[in-house]
Amino acid sequence: MTITPKIIGYVAGTLTTISFLPQAIMTLKTRDTESLSLGMYATFTIGVLLWLVYGIYLDDVAIIYANAITLILASSILCIKVYNTLMHKTGRVSSNEQ
Amino acid sequence: MTITPKIIGYVAGTLTTISFLPQAIMTLKTRDTESLSLGMYATFTIGVLLWLVYGIYLDDVAIIYANAITLILASSILCIKVYNTLMHKTGRVSSNEQ
Repeated sequence: MTITPKIIGYVAGTLTTISFLPQAIMTLKTRDTESLSLGMYATFTIGVLLWLVYGIYLDDVAIIYANAITLILASSILCIKVYNTLMHKTGRVSSNEQ
Repeated sequence: MTITPKIIGYVAGTLTTISFLPQAIMTLKTRDTESLSLGMYATFTIGVLLWLVYGIYLDDVAIIYANAITLILASSILCIKVYNTLMHKTGRVSSNEQ
């Protein structure tokens, strides 16, 4: 009996995606992005997008599925971060930041 | 002129690794792992290890190099987290935790 090596990719993608979920859910729920770095999050999101493109190029379902899910979560958080940053710059700061 | 698709993989790996670096450097310097979840970090580290194994299976240098670097960083942080957790359990807590 041989374990299909493809399964390793699916398990890898599932584990790294699961490990990202709690932070993603918390940020999407609370919309608190104070402790997140815009530059680092933008870098991460572009990186995940390129992994997705690379997965499509390789025609590798494990790479595609893992990075597609992470990209949806990461880009949602990035949008909230950009929105919060813009609101802060235009003076609409929250009570915590005053 | 065609851009070698392999380059996409290298850029993707570089970006996601770079985005992980600041947290890794901070944790390795301060050894403060209070805000990190042991379960989530263990899940992430095993996931990265499996991506590395999958990269070796695919013989894909971009996947191998990105996950090898991240694995070194993530497993170092995981070791510190496990050490801190064990120290806490055996009563050798820091002044902040008393």
